[in-house]
Amino acid sequence: MSDFDPNSLKFNDQGLIPAIAQDADSHEVLMMAWMNAEAVSRTLETARVTYWSRSRQAFWVKGETSGNVQELVSLRVDCDRDCLLMLVKQTGPACHTGRRTCFYTDVTGGSEIELMTPME
Amino acid sequence: MSDFDPNSLKFNDQGLIPAIAQDADSHEVLMMAWMNAEAVSRTLETARVTYWSRSRQAFWVKGETSGNVQELVSLRVDCDRDCLLMLVKQTGPACHTGRRTCFYTDVTGGSEIELMTPME
Repeated sequence: MSDFDPNSLKFNDQGLIPAIAQDADSHEVLMMAWMNAEAVSRTLETARVTYWSRSRQAFWVKGETSGNVQELVSLRVDCDRDCLLMLVKQTGPACHTGRRTCFYTDVTGGSEIELMTPME
Repeated sequence: MSDFDPNSLKFNDQGLIPAIAQDADSHEVLMMAWMNAEAVSRTLETARVTYWSRSRQAFWVKGETSGNVQELVSLRVDCDRDCLLMLVKQTGPACHTGRRTCFYTDVTGGSEIELMTPME
């Protein structure tokens, strides 16, 4: 057991690391977005998942405007320290399209098939 | 339903897209690595998960040397078309350390705790 320092992670040349959100109950993979070291710290401190928005160049507290927040249950680091996995309690849909998960399009058979519709 | 073209994905400035591998049975998130368009095509054609190794700058057929192959069950694209999720049948450990998954270090409480040991 050793202290965890977010700066010990391996960030890309933009100072970001990919963070995968997985539903702690259903185990669905909900989305992948990016964090910088400060976003990792804020997520751990507040238990409210906080990404770094590459398009807005700003912190993005997931659900801050939509209410579809992600409550952190567990944060894990991979063997190379260059990817994060978060188990979360997801309120409402994770996807901005209103679907439960962002990974709603299956392409296994060579065609694009939508697996789910937006939540009510 | 529409035809899927790997070149319609959004790749980063190195021509790569992150690909998350999830165990189709246990739903554990096993690892995240990178693919280029050709790796996506090869994965779909062979059902043998094939990444692009950034360190070796070469195709990386997962398990080709170790035997710890990933058989593709389902390939999904996210809403932004810039991340892939694969459900796979994983033979043996996914992690090069011999652990079942690469995400074996929990840091939720501010300390690093190993959640699992290498498989037999």
